[in-house]
Formats: sequence, structure tokens, C-alpha cells
Amino acid sequence: MSKRRPSIGVFDSGFGGLTVLKALLEVIAGADFIYFGDTARLPYGSKSVDTVGAQLLVIACNTATALALDRITAATHVPVIGVVEPGADSAAAVSKNKRIVVIGTEATVSSQAYSKALAARGMQATEKACPLLVPLVEEGWVEHPVTKQVAGIYLGEAFQGEFEDADVLVLGCTHYPLLKPLLQSVAPAHVTIVDSAESTARAVARRMRALLPQVDDGEDERRAQARLKFFATDSVEKFQRLGQRFLGRSIEGVQHVDLKE
Amino acid sequence: MSKRRPSIGVFDSGFGGLTVLKALLEVIAGADFIYFGDTARLPYGSKSVDTVGAQLLVIACNTATALALDRITAATHVPVIGVVEPGADSAAAVSKNKRIVVIGTEATVSSQAYSKALAARGMQATEKACPLLVPLVEEGWVEHPVTKQVAGIYLGEAFQGEFEDADVLVLGCTHYPLLKPLLQSVAPAHVTIVDSAESTARAVARRMRALLPQVDDGEDERRAQARLKFFATDSVEKFQRLGQRFLGRSIEGVQHVDLKE
Repeated sequence: MSKRRPSIGVFDSGFGGLTVLKALLEVIAGADFIYFGDTARLPYGSKSVDTVGAQLLVIACNTATALALDRITAATHVPVIGVVEPGADSAAAVSKNKRIVVIGTEATVSSQAYSKALAARGMQATEKACPLLVPLVEEGWVEHPVTKQVAGIYLGEAFQGEFEDADVLVLGCTHYPLLKPLLQSVAPAHVTIVDSAESTARAVARRMRALLPQVDDGEDERRAQARLKFFATDSVEKFQRLGQRFLGRSIEGVQHVDLKE
Repeated sequence: MSKRRPSIGVFDSGFGGLTVLKALLEVIAGADFIYFGDTARLPYGSKSVDTVGAQLLVIACNTATALALDRITAATHVPVIGVVEPGADSAAAVSKNKRIVVIGTEATVSSQAYSKALAARGMQATEKACPLLVPLVEEGWVEHPVTKQVAGIYLGEAFQGEFEDADVLVLGCTHYPLLKPLLQSVAPAHVTIVDSAESTARAVARRMRALLPQVDDGEDERRAQARLKFFATDSVEKFQRLGQRFLGRSIEGVQHVDLKE
């Protein structure tokens, strides 16, 4: 039986993907996680994953998954998991009336990646761009009355017409899990929220079990302790300060990388 | 007397600088304006200005002025005017009690460019980052109750302590002129708003008169008609759609440029 620790690369364009890392830490014990907050240079950066020896790469950003998953998959030699397919799987499993509302950034919504993934599962989806939610989360206003109003306006526009009784709301942006309680309070009462960060973490756990069958063996405490490394191309100070709200724990030892070299 | 038409390059990282172009069109007749909505590649792009023969370059973005004016000035052969110094001049001319509030993006505020420029004019300034205002303007919510609440919160935090009776509010971001009526309604009644776009336009007009003494000659109608060219590195469709709100007129013939080549 191999004693090799699972090693997972997590990629994002900033710190939003830390909500995916948080979900991963809850379902996968004793792995090495290498997080790249790699502002907008994902395909380039994927070479870094090969060099740090990750056995699997998670694209922990909806926009990057929607726009660049194929290119990233082609550029690396390990399995790559994005957030859209797992999110669509969960939404399809939960929905009873097969009508689903997806919220995300403008770029994610324009790509229609979720609509296509959900259509392939027999679901009908409407996608709503919510460009103010990311800056509101970054401002720290996750329980603020202004945010509640803004979310109310966006969800009001999404849950209407033939989607008035949609029964699933997919959080198609890794910033949105911080707004989950607020969104639950604003969405129609019958709606189930699907967080693609959680869905992705479960998909990664399944994949890692297949890759490394010993992951579930409960070997010892050394294994149970996750190890985290962070690389940021932007301001390290900002990454640490904002990032801890996303990860739900303090962030230390962020290394700055300059991918222009 | 030279018959040469004035030719002015206007640089921004997107379409915010179109408020500066709008102000320029109001004070300078019959010039050629070449607008570069050049997402984040300003120093590189300044070479383009040489190739299109602009006689003067306006850095129509507060963040770019604050962070890169020196580098841009060094990289080009024509006079360069940013928005910070003209804005500081106007603010210093208007203020009676020498206490000034500046609002802008996080990067502009962090640079303290306005505080330094105002201190050099004997003014005391406080700078307040307002990261939600740009996305609110881009969402088109320029008269929206949510925007009014957000602006009220920001200005309430800025106009306090020794700045409670500050008598000037400087709009240190080229998106903010679209919020001028809303900000005027939210700011304390005694406050005068200084729009650095307008101040910059007047500074450019003075400089162009010095460079090209015929500008004020009122030659003929051919001269009075401004000519506009637009180059965008981002989505042309988005530039046209959002840009017309900033320029106050329709935008046509935007050329896409790829500066990566």
C-alpha cells in the first residue's frame, strides 16, 4: 500500500477559490494542498502544478472553468476538475421540477456553461449575472442590509416567468458561499441552494479515492493533518487579509510569485 | 499661422476616461481625439501615441495617474497630463477651510497621490476608498436608492472627526462624475464637488493653447468639428454599450487592438 500523501493543486484567479479549498478540507483528510491565487494567468500557471507534483488540479473558479477548462486540461498532465460539472450534478440531483436558477459573474453567465451542463442533465436553467455581489463580499458586507436589497433585486429578476417556481439556486461564483445565509433568506422559501464549492469538493474526494485508494485507510494522525501552501501573484497582504474570510481560518506563509518571468 | 489641427491622445484602463473626453469636448473645439481604452497596459500603449501623432497625452484615469504617471511620461515624447494635479489645483482654489475629502478606488487611495498633491498646496486631505461605486455605476444604478445608501455610508465615514466640516469633495475616479447629482444630494450641504475630469480638461485646453496658439482663433466650421477615434483592448461591444453613458453621446467605430502582439 502506497504511503504517498494526496497532493492537490487548487487554482483560482484570486482568493474566491478559498471557499473551494475550505470545502475540500472538510471532506479530504491529510492531503497537501497547493493553492495558486493566480490572477488571470491560469493556463500559464498550470505548468507550475506539474513542477510541485500535484496529483490532481482543481479549477476553483467558475469563470476560469467556464472559459478555460479545456485549455487547462490540455496543458497539464494530471486530472483536472472544474466547478461547473459538479455543481450541475448536484443541482440536477436536488431539483424536483427541473427548473434551476444559476447566479454568477457576467463572464460565467455569458459563457452559458451552466445552462449547457444542466441541459445535458435534462434540466432547464436561467442564468443571472450579479456583478455587484463580488465587490459587496470583498467589502465585507456579507450580512449588510444593502447586500440584502441588492440580492433581493437580482433574485427577483431571476425567479420570474417560467422560473418563478424554480426550486434550485446554484451559486455559480466562489465568492457567493459567504452570502449563503443571506441568499437563503432572500430566495423563495421552497428553494434549495447548491454551492458548487461543496459539490466540487465531494467530486474531488471521490476522484482522489480512485487515484489513491489508501486515502480512506485512516492511517494515523500525521495523515489526518492537512498541509497548506499558498502562492499569490497579487498583493500578499490583501490575499491574507481577505482570504481568511473565505477560508474560515487564518492564512500564513503566502508566497508571492511573479509569473511574468 | 499653423493650420495643424490639435491632436490629443486620451488614455484609460477602460471606459471611465470617457468622462474626461466628454469634458475635453466641451472646452476644446476642433481637435482630433484618439482614445485608448487600454486595459492595464498603459506604459506599453504609450508607444502607440507616438505612432498616431498625438501632440499631447492625457492620462484619463486616477489610478493610472497615481501609480504610473512618471513611467508614462518617461516613455513618451509629448507632454503628458494626468488627472491628479489639475484636480488638486481646483480643490485648493475652491476650499475655504483647507480641509478636503477625496474619494477614489482602493489603489488610488493607497497611493496617497491626492494627499501629497493637496499637502503641497497647503491643504489637509482625507482619502476614502469607495470600491462599490465603480460596479454600481457599471451596473447603471446611477440614481438607484441602493447607490444612495452606499454613497451615504462612504461619505458618512469620510466626513467625520476633523473632516466633518471639510468643504470640498474631490471625485478621484473617472466613473464618479456619473454620480455627481447623487453625491451632491448625499454630501453635507456646504460641500462643493470638484470633478477632476473637468479640471483636467481645462488644464489640457490651457496647455494646447500654449502648444498651438491657433486653437482659439475660431477659424471655421471644419475646425470646430471634433474627430474621435476609439481603440479598445477589451470587448468592443461592451466599450460601446457602457461607454456612451460616460461620454454622453453614442460611440461608433471602435477598433479592437491586441497589445499582446
